[in-house]
Order: sequence, then C-alpha cells, then structure tokens
Amino acid sequence: MLPWWAELAGRIDEHIVTSELLRGNPLGDPAERPLWVYVPPGYDEEPDRRYPAVYVIQGYTGHVAMWRNRSAYRQPFPECADALFAGGEAPPAIVVYVDAWTAYGGSQFVDSRGTGRYHSYLCDEVVPWVDAHYRTVASSACRAITGKSSGGFGAMITPMLRPDLFGALATHAGDALYEHCYIPEFGTAVRLLRDYDGDIWRWWDDFRSRVSFTKEADQHLLMLLGVSACFSAREDGTVELPFDPRTGMLRPDVWQRWLDWDPVRMAPRYAHALRSLQAIWIDAGRRAARGRGGRRGGQVRAVRRHPRRHRLPVPALARLAMRAYCAGQGRVIRWPR
Amino acid sequence: MLPWWAELAGRIDEHIVTSELLRGNPLGDPAERPLWVYVPPGYDEEPDRRYPAVYVIQGYTGHVAMWRNRSAYRQPFPECADALFAGGEAPPAIVVYVDAWTAYGGSQFVDSRGTGRYHSYLCDEVVPWVDAHYRTVASSACRAITGKSSGGFGAMITPMLRPDLFGALATHAGDALYEHCYIPEFGTAVRLLRDYDGDIWRWWDDFRSRVSFTKEADQHLLMLLGVSACFSAREDGTVELPFDPRTGMLRPDVWQRWLDWDPVRMAPRYAHALRSLQAIWIDAGRRAARGRGGRRGGQVRAVRRHPRRHRLPVPALARLAMRAYCAGQGRVIRWPR
Amino acid sequence: MLPWWAELAGRIDEHIVTSELLRGNPLGDPAERPLWVYVPPGYDEEPDRRYPAVYVIQGYTGHVAMWRNRSAYRQPFPECADALFAGGEAPPAIVVYVDAWTAYGGSQFVDSRGTGRYHSYLCDEVVPWVDAHYRTVASSACRAITGKSSGGFGAMITPMLRPDLFGALATHAGDALYEHCYIPEFGTAVRLLRDYDGDIWRWWDDFRSRVSFTKEADQHLLMLLGVSACFSAREDGTVELPFDPRTGMLRPDVWQRWLDWDPVRMAPRYAHALRSLQAIWIDAGRRAARGRGGRRGGQVRAVRRHPRRHRLPVPALARLAMRAYCAGQGRVIRWPR
Amino acid sequence: MLPWWAELAGRIDEHIVTSELLRGNPLGDPAERPLWVYVPPGYDEEPDRRYPAVYVIQGYTGHVAMWRNRSAYRQPFPECADALFAGGEAPPAIVVYVDAWTAYGGSQFVDSRGTGRYHSYLCDEVVPWVDAHYRTVASSACRAITGKSSGGFGAMITPMLRPDLFGALATHAGDALYEHCYIPEFGTAVRLLRDYDGDIWRWWDDFRSRVSFTKEADQHLLMLLGVSACFSAREDGTVELPFDPRTGMLRPDVWQRWLDWDPVRMAPRYAHALRSLQAIWIDAGRRAARGRGGRRGGQVRAVRRHPRRHRLPVPALARLAMRAYCAGQGRVIRWPR
Repeated sequence: MLPWWAELAGRIDEHIVTSELLRGNPLGDPAERPLWVYVPPGYDEEPDRRYPAVYVIQGYTGHVAMWRNRSAYRQPFPECADALFAGGEAPPAIVVYVDAWTAYGGSQFVDSRGTGRYHSYLCDEVVPWVDAHYRTVASSACRAITGKSSGGFGAMITPMLRPDLFGALATHAGDALYEHCYIPEFGTAVRLLRDYDGDIWRWWDDFRSRVSFTKEADQHLLMLLGVSACFSAREDGTVELPFDPRTGMLRPDVWQRWLDWDPVRMAPRYAHALRSLQAIWIDAGRRAARGRGGRRGGQVRAVRRHPRRHRLPVPALARLAMRAYCAGQGRVIRWPR
Repeated sequence: MLPWWAELAGRIDEHIVTSELLRGNPLGDPAERPLWVYVPPGYDEEPDRRYPAVYVIQGYTGHVAMWRNRSAYRQPFPECADALFAGGEAPPAIVVYVDAWTAYGGSQFVDSRGTGRYHSYLCDEVVPWVDAHYRTVASSACRAITGKSSGGFGAMITPMLRPDLFGALATHAGDALYEHCYIPEFGTAVRLLRDYDGDIWRWWDDFRSRVSFTKEADQHLLMLLGVSACFSAREDGTVELPFDPRTGMLRPDVWQRWLDWDPVRMAPRYAHALRSLQAIWIDAGRRAARGRGGRRGGQVRAVRRHPRRHRLPVPALARLAMRAYCAGQGRVIRWPR
Repeated sequence: MLPWWAELAGRIDEHIVTSELLRGNPLGDPAERPLWVYVPPGYDEEPDRRYPAVYVIQGYTGHVAMWRNRSAYRQPFPECADALFAGGEAPPAIVVYVDAWTAYGGSQFVDSRGTGRYHSYLCDEVVPWVDAHYRTVASSACRAITGKSSGGFGAMITPMLRPDLFGALATHAGDALYEHCYIPEFGTAVRLLRDYDGDIWRWWDDFRSRVSFTKEADQHLLMLLGVSACFSAREDGTVELPFDPRTGMLRPDVWQRWLDWDPVRMAPRYAHALRSLQAIWIDAGRRAARGRGGRRGGQVRAVRRHPRRHRLPVPALARLAMRAYCAGQGRVIRWPR
Repeated sequence: MLPWWAELAGRIDEHIVTSELLRGNPLGDPAERPLWVYVPPGYDEEPDRRYPAVYVIQGYTGHVAMWRNRSAYRQPFPECADALFAGGEAPPAIVVYVDAWTAYGGSQFVDSRGTGRYHSYLCDEVVPWVDAHYRTVASSACRAITGKSSGGFGAMITPMLRPDLFGALATHAGDALYEHCYIPEFGTAVRLLRDYDGDIWRWWDDFRSRVSFTKEADQHLLMLLGVSACFSAREDGTVELPFDPRTGMLRPDVWQRWLDWDPVRMAPRYAHALRSLQAIWIDAGRRAARGRGGRRGGQVRAVRRHPRRHRLPVPALARLAMRAYCAGQGRVIRWPR
C-alpha cells in the first residue's frame, strides 16, 4: 500500500450547499457548507439503479475536509468504504459526508440557540438535497447514519428524533451515560479554569489569540464551551455552564438540560422510534479513558432494554462500521445479532 | 536528624480500651481497640494543670499502629507534634490517636449498619474515657479534631454533629463535593469490576485470598466497598453500591444517601454548629488527582458562606495542623484568619 | 479562519520525479517519488527573478501528502509559509517539500544498505532537478534545509555532509545525544519484544497483517526497525539491532555505528562545515519526553563550541522555522544571534 | 489478621554495634549502628543447636527501623519470615537485619571514598559479631544474603566479592544492566537540575532545608547523588556525576566506574565465585518501570552463562525470598532449579 494517494473505484463529489436554516446562526458560521457525496462503482453505468444512503458525521473538532487526511500505514475511511463496495463485501451505497462544524468546534448535531440549527440542517436540508441530486432510495428503510464520538452521539439521537428519516444507526464510542462521560471533565475544567479566574471567556480570548492546543486547557475547555452552547444555551443564546466554574458544584437545572440529551436517558422516551429501526450497531470503543469505563455498558443496556423485532437484513451500514473501526478498538455489539 | 528513632519530650501511652458500642459489630471487628494518648512535656511535673485535647483520626486504610511508621528524611507526625510543644511553638496539649479501623479498611467515623458505630464510639466512649483518665479541660472549647483524607472528612462531620463535644476542627484534603470526589471513581470501579462479572464480592474473595494491593482494582474497590458499607448499607447491614456495577448508572436513592454525607451539602444544614466552633482550618491539599480539582474550592466556599464571629484565640490545633502538613501540600485556608 | 480550505497567494506544483538512485532500493519502494515545489506570490509575474530555496523534510512516518492534512484551529505548514511570503514578513523563497518515505516509515535522510540512498537522492537528484526546473539561486548561500524530529536530524546532518549545497539549517527537536534519545527506547523495545519472542520480524509480520498502531509496540518497534535499517544494516542489507533483543545489552560495535550518526558527536568532525553555514537555527522543542531532558542542551552546546563568524543576513529560513514552530514549543536558540 | 500487631514465634533482638570501619566516615554518619538479629522458635530451648544465617539488606532510603512499619492488609517481612519458620515451611534460621544507611540515603553496600566502608562493615564486622554472639554455623555454606532493589544489588555483589563468607544469594529487582537502569534516570536528572542551574549541590541544600520528597526532583536527584558518591567519588571523596549535568553527555571515564559495578558486567569476572555458590535466586520484579524492561533479562542471562553444579539442598533462603515476595511481583527464576 503506497501512502501518498489512492484511486477510488467510486467517486466523491464535493459540493457546497447553501443552508437557509444556518443563515444568521449565532456564531456567525457560514451558511454555505461543504458536502461530500460518494457514489459507488457502477453508479454511472447503471443510470436507473437507486441506492441506499449512509450519512457519516464526525467527532468533535472534525470538519469534512479532514476526511482527506492521510497518515502512515492507515487507509482513510473514505477509501476503506470504497474498497468495501469495490470488493463486493457490501451492497453498493451512496455515502454522504456531512459537515456540522461551528466556531466552537462542533454542533453535537442538535438545534441550539447557542450554535445553530444543525439537526434541522441535516434532516431538512441535507437529506432532501441528496435525495434530489442523487439516485437514492428515499425512504428511512434505506437511509442510515453513523459516526464516532460526538458523531456517534449524533448517530444515536438523530434516528430517535427522526425515525421517519433514518432507519438504521451505527455508533462508535458515542457520548452517553453523562455522569461518567462529563462529570470527570467538569472537575478537570474547574482546575484548568483557575488560570482564567474561573472565566471561560478569558480562556476563549486566550485560545483565539495564539497557536491552538498548546495548553492542556484547550481541548478540555473547548469541548466544555461547545457542548454547553449546544445543550444549555439560554433563550438569548448565552452559554451556561452546568457547574459553578469556581467551586465545581453542579447547577442542577442546567445539568438537567444536559441529562435530557443523554442517549441512555433518552432511550426509554424514544423506545418506539428505536424499535422501529432496521439495524442498530453499537461499538463501545476500547480506549475508554480512565473513569469512563462505565458509560459504554449503560449505553448498550439501555438499548437492550428496548429491543425490537428483526425485520430486514442489515444493510451496508453495519459492514461499513465494522470495516471502518476494524482496528480492534472495542467490543462490538451487533444489533440485531 | 538520625532516621532510626527519636526521643519524645512528652510521652505516648498505648492503651487498649473495650468498647461496648462496637461489641458485636457487623464485620466482627474487635471491640477491644488500641488508643494512644500523648501527654506533652511537663504533664507529670505539673499534676494540677489541665490541658486542651486534640483528637487525631486517620485516612482510609490507616490504623493507629501506623503512626509509628518511619521513612527516610521525614519525621513522623507524633514527633512533629511533640517538637511543637517542646519548642514552645504551641501551648501544650494532650493528643489522642484514635483507631477506627474496620475489616473493610475504614469507618468514615460514622455510625453505620454496615460497619459499626464508630461515630458514637469516638464521641461517647473515647472522649469520656480520655477525660476520665487524663487531665483534660473537658469542654468543647478545649477539644479539637483533625485528620487527613477520610480523617479530614471525619474532622469535618464530627463537630457538625457534636458541637457540644468539639469546638475546633482542622481538615486536610477531606472528602467533599461528592460529584467530583466519587463519581469518577465509580466509572473506574465499573471497569475494574468487569473482571469480576460486576460482583464486588467476587473481588473481595479474591482480595482476601492473596497478597493485597497487587492489582489495580484493590485500592479502588476496597474504598468503594468500605464507603458503601459506611454510607449506604441497608437496615440489615447489606451493602448497596450507589450505582449499577454493570452499567455504571447511578442509583439515585442510594446515591442520595451518600450525598447526605457530603460536607459541602451538610454545611448549610449544620451552619449553626459550624458557627459555634472556635476555629476551622481547611487545608485543601495540593496533589488533587486529575478531575478532582473542583472539590476543594466547594468545600471552602461552603464554609465561608456560613461564617462565625471570632471569639477565642485559636488553640494548638491550627499550629499542629500547619506543622503536620507543612510540606507545602496545598493552599491553606485559615479560619478564622 | 475557516477550517475547510485556504487559498494560497503562491502556488504548489505537485510533481513526480523518477530517481535513478532509488531504483532497486532494498525495500522495493518506488523510485517514482512525489515532490512538491511551492513558488511564492509574484513568481510568475517576475519571470527573471531568481529565489532562494528552502528544503523541508519530515519526521518519522511522514510522507509528502501529509502536508495537505488539516485539523481544527490550526493552519497547515504550507499555508503558514505562504502567509509569511504574502505578508512580506520574509523575502520570497521557493519551498521544496521532499518525500523520503520508506516501507519502514522513514529514511533518516542517509544513504543506507538497509533502505536506500535517500541522502544522495536529496542532494544529487532533487536539488539539481529543482534548480533545473525553477528559478532558484543555485548556490549554497541561498539554499537552506529545515525539518522536525527525524526531519530535524536530517536538517542537521545534510549541511554537515554537503556544505557545498546547503548554507543554512533550521532544526526543530531533531534527534541528537543518542544515549538519551535512544537508549530509553531500547529498554522499552525489549519489553515489547517479549510478546514476539524477541524477534522483531515476528512483530513486523504482525504489524503488516492488521490495522496499524493499535498496539503499544507499533510506534516503538517501527522506529527501532527503521532506524536500525538506516544506521546499522550490514553490507548485504540485513538489519542489525544495536542491542540484544532478549537481554537489552548493547552491542557495542553496532551501537557505535549509531553514535557515528549522532549530530552532537558529528559536530566536532564537521566543525568546518558548520562554521561555513550562513545560519543555524536550533529549536529544542518543549515536549521533551521523560528522560530526554538532556538531549537538547547537548545538541546546542555542541554547536556553540564550534561557532562561526556571522557573514550574511539570515535568510527566510529562520522566519519560516519560527512561524512554523511558533506554538511556543520550546526555547528557541537562534544562531547567529 | 489484625492490623495493629503480631506476636512472633521467634524473637528479634535489637542491638547497637560500634563499627571501627565506619568511624570517621566521609559523611559523618554514626559509627554506632542498629543491628537486629532474629532467632527462630526453639532457639532458646535447644541451646546446643546451631543455625544457618540469612542476612537481609534494604533498598535505597531504607533503614533498619523501617522493618517495623505496618500497613493495611499486609504482613511485614519479619513476620512473614517468622511465620515461615513457625509453620515448618523452612528449616529454622537466624535472620540478620543489617543497616547501611547514610546521609545520602544509602551505601550500595560497597566501600567508597564518598560514603564509607559499608561493604567491609558488613563482611568484616557484622558477620563476625553475629557469629560471636549467636549460635550460627559459621561457614559460607550456611550463610546467605538477600535484598530488594539496592539491597538486591548488594545481595548480588557481596557474594561475588566474598564467596568465602556467603554461599547463597537471593535478589529481587536488583540494579543491573546499567544502560537501562541508569541512563534514562540521567536524562531525567538533567531536566530536573535545570531548576538548580545544573548544580546538584544547590538541590541538596534545598532538599535539606524543607520537607523532603515534595518535589519531583527529590527522589531522582537523591539517588543520583548517593550512587555517584558510592561508585564514582574521587580519591578525596568528591562526588563526580557520570554525565555533564547541563548537557547530559556521558563522561566516559566516570561512567566506566559505574559500569564496573554492573552485576551483569561483573558476572563474567566473578564467574568462579558465582559457580561456588550453593543457591542463587533471582526474582526480576514485575513493576519494571517504563524503559527498564530489558535490565532484568540481562541479569538472569549473565548468571545463566556461568552456571554451577548443584551440590547442596537449597537452604531457607529461597523460601524466605519466595514468601517475602510472593505478591506475584514477577517472573521468578530459581537457581538451581
């Protein structure tokens, strides 16, 4: 395998789409967004054939141009997926690479007064655009979503909220079980905020004034700021942290707004939606950071408590997920088995 | 300073006291307990003089015989305290070294159906015994309590519960702000319990069958088991963990029983008791583990919110605490200033 | 700053050059190599103007296509450099991005029986090719080389060996002082090789059979194998490790071959060459791994012991290096001052 | 097992012996040294019986009074050994607890111009004193030595140097293979010395002026200073570090003096002595720090290359070693098997 480049059997089209829903978003991020659409080998040769579509979303600080990144001895995801279709390991599918970047590094794929309407952008603008411009099978039974980390979170909640659009999900190390996922981070944040008198905006000013990610605080506080903007912005868009930044004490009402977005806690509420899905793939990840050992199990259990009957064969999604994360990075829970 | 031994200016008497309250305790621990009492230089020469008393309690897995441990280049606590009195840096005091060991490694100095009545043992048996056998000033104004870690927790709650007995406290890195102090530990515990099918009793059997503290799980699960026994045992003494050991999800009712013992949350309820104290010394510790940065501030702030007027000169306690923890191990908050 | 793309003021031309010297190299790596040449803004408008050239080489496991990688909140190096020229902060220069990738992840920019003639490829093929195809000032006084880590090593040794070609160097965290740079790695390697019966080829087979960098051994053993191939291959190309892989004992004769490539030890031998340089920039790096604290100082001191008179103004090189590594990642030693 | 105390079946006599050889030692350490001698159960009842003797020496910063230290859930070594004899698991033996403390924290059990004649003290004063005051079998065949870490080093070299005195050894995680054991420490030391302008004596002054072991530098620089005093003091006692404290470059001649004390390198020179031993027990330790994985194997291999015929049954030594280190702390190499 040569490291410099690879030929795809299929093709990636790089588009810019103009979003009405993101226009005038609170952070002033562009409403013109990159959108990549991959078509599998044979797409052009069989002009009447329609294809299922897999939407791929990214983890925190990810943006769509990073799918092009290369590193030694590893094949980028888009090439892995292409090879799967080229080798006949999975039935051909259209793969949609969605960008939901914000100035804070991410959107958690929710509609928020703090960042913008990224959930609606995905569901009400990107999906129709893709269906209009590509030969998809425009039904939830043939539309899946997958992602890792924050993208894994998005892949869990989007079909819960919109089972009419997405009929399958694959989540890899998605954020869940927030007491273990986030509370240890809050303790770290309080310590790091001491250098900024407990004021996250002083850190933000500092962060933007210099080369990024050269301080330990950067990755922790960026995500804290961004997720707070997604989950607990006030009506007027003001960001509220879920804890007192000087003492670390939880602010119960703000924290509850976060918990309302915890997939483990959402699962019972959205049990009907989950049961309607064609396929659920949960890959718990292996490199569980210290203190996070518990979160994955909770995630899986919550899903297991709300099972569904197996109706359709698992689509390309599961194979895609397996191939993409085949690094042995965790215990894989396949659902349906 | 020679490392092997030291002469004390005062004297330590090593007693065994028989506790009625610990008899038949749930863990079958001895009701005969070691109790060390230090008398300062001059105690025997001035037979009519009475002294204030400082009660010293230990951190988790500590037992009273460990006060005798020596290590290179460091003076043991009892010798530091003795030097303080010998040098006239503090007015002479009686120092009482209390043992509250249990088979699980500690008692948190509370009365518990899971471990025994260690709070009452300390307050209703040890204190009267010391007052009966030594020339103390038997009033709360001249009785203080101090400790580190779990002992620091005990030093916070004991005067809250019994301001009639203790008139001053010094706490070093005491457990508080439980979301940061304990929740990260629960995540770790869930991960470690995987090797035991989520059953902490399987770990306990393993732990007792081999040389201790040779597995990463040991220190984490021992403390989890012990603190659960202290805070959340059922009426019949059965230990309940505050989370599901397989998923990590908090069990809100059990967790609430822990929170009821959080000094930061107790402080408002016991504001009257706290305000009545002669002196409060809070030393936050420096080696705050990752993710725990927040807990100390909360602890201090809670106390500050419930101030008291300064009535009496600070007794030997604060000096003892300062000297004992003079390693520069933290920001020291002196109260009253 | 938008994360997805950037317009350059200048232009990067991506070439493939065919190397005679790399043909039939021991690892079967391609003799057709990517080579990127950047021309600054104005290059096309001033067809008679000639430019100094800065050669940029990469760290271990780097290959030229990785210069295109993007990440959140950070500007890729080629864009930083372009901005420098566009803003007039540095006099315009041609920047040459050289690829010296091998199947083992790197070449250390030396000629080796184990990997190939990458030093000669750079000096005798790339430099003349660039001079022939671009309007460079084809003299050492106007040709510089820079790199980080293994690239920083290459940037030190290449001008020592070929002061006729390169008149300036900038090195960032370059490998040097090999007792501290490598011996701790050898101990780690012995431990990691236990899973492979001390046979690095068993690891290599394992490494190539699965997703890379999913085991702790991977990064350590890859670099060990690769650097051994560069520094201590036998006449027939067989790789010799500088220590017994089962006991860790140094093999003095093989280890000496490594030491012969230690820039700190080379400096006295190449003092004349070093003194002839226009500019030397040494940036020691900040994230010195544990146990490596010493190596940087040695590197700098060795250079200081062999100073040179200051002849010419520092070219764009130093500014490029400063901008590229402006993350505050270390004490920067500028030479000449 | 109660944590506070234990009754011994045998008896420990605590002596103070006056050493002629340590009188006037360079560090001004006392010539009066504590010496503990344990006699097994039955010693007083069988006044004509003679016993083999096991000499136990300590790791760096250890002193004899630390054998009395207690901790939770663990039995101190002297009690483990006593239980072994009481239970009949090992034939009864006298156990001698030797103190070789110095102001720098240890002596490495060698004769040194920098610290004193601790090797001779052990061999020419302690051994005869014990033989004169206790009913030992005063021959090398019945005299063994054991220790951990620096004590493990001492247990290796003492019988090499004095096979006439010691006929068996057990070493646990003893210092050996110095390139891996020490060179990584030197890199760390250079980094830590930056805060002291590269002057270890400035650190020493700082260390003695405050509570010890509150800075990262303390443990590293103390051992560096102490071992340098043991291995590479000049004729006049001046301590020489084996590297340039500002650059980290090895000083080959000083470093060679250290290597001359490397048990792996000593083994061939002392092969005759090693072959004459009754028993060799090498326990490699498990918690090999990062980067030290190699040292243990080298140690074992060096011994294996110089085997001996098995003449006598293994004495109590091996059992003592096994029991003392039964924590599963490593692969145990028993010799003879």
